[in-house]
Amino acid sequence: MRVVVAGAGTIGSLYAAHLARVADVAVLTRRPAHAQALTEHGLRVSGRGDFTARVRAAADPQELGDADLVIVACKGGDLAALAAQLAGRFESATLMTVQNGLGAEEAVAVQGGWPLLSAVTFMSGTRHADEHVEYILDTATWIGPYRDTDAADAEAVAELIRSSGLKAEAFPDLRPAQWSKLIFNATVNTVAALTGLPHDFHFAEGMLGELVHGLVDEGKAVAAAAGVALNEDPWEMNVHATQHGHAHYPSMLEDVSARRPTEIELITGSLVREAERLGVAVPLHTTMYRLVKAKEASYS
Amino acid sequence: MRVVVAGAGTIGSLYAAHLARVADVAVLTRRPAHAQALTEHGLRVSGRGDFTARVRAAADPQELGDADLVIVACKGGDLAALAAQLAGRFESATLMTVQNGLGAEEAVAVQGGWPLLSAVTFMSGTRHADEHVEYILDTATWIGPYRDTDAADAEAVAELIRSSGLKAEAFPDLRPAQWSKLIFNATVNTVAALTGLPHDFHFAEGMLGELVHGLVDEGKAVAAAAGVALNEDPWEMNVHATQHGHAHYPSMLEDVSARRPTEIELITGSLVREAERLGVAVPLHTTMYRLVKAKEASYS
Repeated sequence: MRVVVAGAGTIGSLYAAHLARVADVAVLTRRPAHAQALTEHGLRVSGRGDFTARVRAAADPQELGDADLVIVACKGGDLAALAAQLAGRFESATLMTVQNGLGAEEAVAVQGGWPLLSAVTFMSGTRHADEHVEYILDTATWIGPYRDTDAADAEAVAELIRSSGLKAEAFPDLRPAQWSKLIFNATVNTVAALTGLPHDFHFAEGMLGELVHGLVDEGKAVAAAAGVALNEDPWEMNVHATQHGHAHYPSMLEDVSARRPTEIELITGSLVREAERLGVAVPLHTTMYRLVKAKEASYS
Repeated sequence: MRVVVAGAGTIGSLYAAHLARVADVAVLTRRPAHAQALTEHGLRVSGRGDFTARVRAAADPQELGDADLVIVACKGGDLAALAAQLAGRFESATLMTVQNGLGAEEAVAVQGGWPLLSAVTFMSGTRHADEHVEYILDTATWIGPYRDTDAADAEAVAELIRSSGLKAEAFPDLRPAQWSKLIFNATVNTVAALTGLPHDFHFAEGMLGELVHGLVDEGKAVAAAAGVALNEDPWEMNVHATQHGHAHYPSMLEDVSARRPTEIELITGSLVREAERLGVAVPLHTTMYRLVKAKEASYS
């Protein structure tokens, strides 16, 4: 089994290192120096694992040979450029997207005729160096068919991922899971980014809890209009997350604290655009969207 | 004319120093050391003025003698405690409040039977030390009757303030001006505090302009339900302010940047409570209120 992991941030690094234990893994990086570091030193996992994987790596997809599976694991903001780089390559591969939000599959689909799988992941980690990632939350990757694939294809990739030591689950239709995560993310990330609060008890009670509940309700209305039956209630996901373990710092809060661009377009942006297309009013998400966009504008 | 200025922050200091040129001024401070500094060194004004005024000062109202006019110039969060200190004192004085938001007059009214004037001020400055304040924006104080006073009383105080070198204007009813400023403040301060943007062109155009417009519209609906005809359109105040002079840093942005408590309760809080009392839906202001309260909670 030949796997290419395209994108070597936290999530891509976790896939690459684990899968290298059960498959032939090559990593497509953005920077040549990153590829060189991986080739020379391997890729170390700490935290929930403690091992160093040997991987091939390059910043040019022409140098990677063919693959059976390409996991497109970059951040959403880098997806269009990465997908363009994949055009004409990996002709016998199935491609799997794992970006947040909506629309990642289509961004890849326009670049080539590969069979496509759709995925979202809940695992998390911290990237300490080009060749060192810490594995923190061992939560699952959810996988479903998208184009020219079926439930058996999704299950085969889920089984491959599980055999590598990560958690994964296949679904006949990913959208109920994808939308549950989208609504959860659009709510928790923007509230954290604007208030500076980690995802803690404030999100589940009192007046901030009321705001979170209102944001979740708007998201549910959009999902219902899109004909999607959520597989988890985002409000319950929120309450559960705030009651277990230490307070998590959502990535959008880390992004604005470091004055970096956020994933607002892919997360809340995709929800607001879908709401507009379906004629559903989402004044609260629209407000959060505008405020985070303005916060990004304040960096300059 | 005997004037007591109660509260010696930026606004109180500007009143005290200017009025000392045309009246007998005493300053009520919170800290004894502040009163001692004023007594020993006088009160210096720089910026638009450049002079040092001699003022009497004390931290105990018992030491200040009687007055004809007491200007209650503390921040809104300190008003209840200051008003309680005034109970039983300055029996022949008229008291004038100049706090942001709604409800300052009532907070003073419950502490004694003084005739009351209601005021808002648009002037601004920076406090550099206990005995030094910089006068920056020479905009007006607006004054109206509130209890046992009439338009002539408001005009007499406005004339006194003008004779001291500051700008002031009397109105037969202050509420149209007070509400215009309240809606402007609730909008501009919260947007700035949550986004980190100073009050610049972003507030008057594009998607942030749409949010600002939506917040102003909600405020207008509350004013209409309260029977108040605004004397200035807060949207036009916003556009005007962003087109003239350098970008202003609203006080709530300065407060959250320094991780200080904000005036959110007095400003947006009073607007949201008034909306609830009148049965007007204000989802956007409610969202801004909850987000700023959560930002305050993130300090600890």
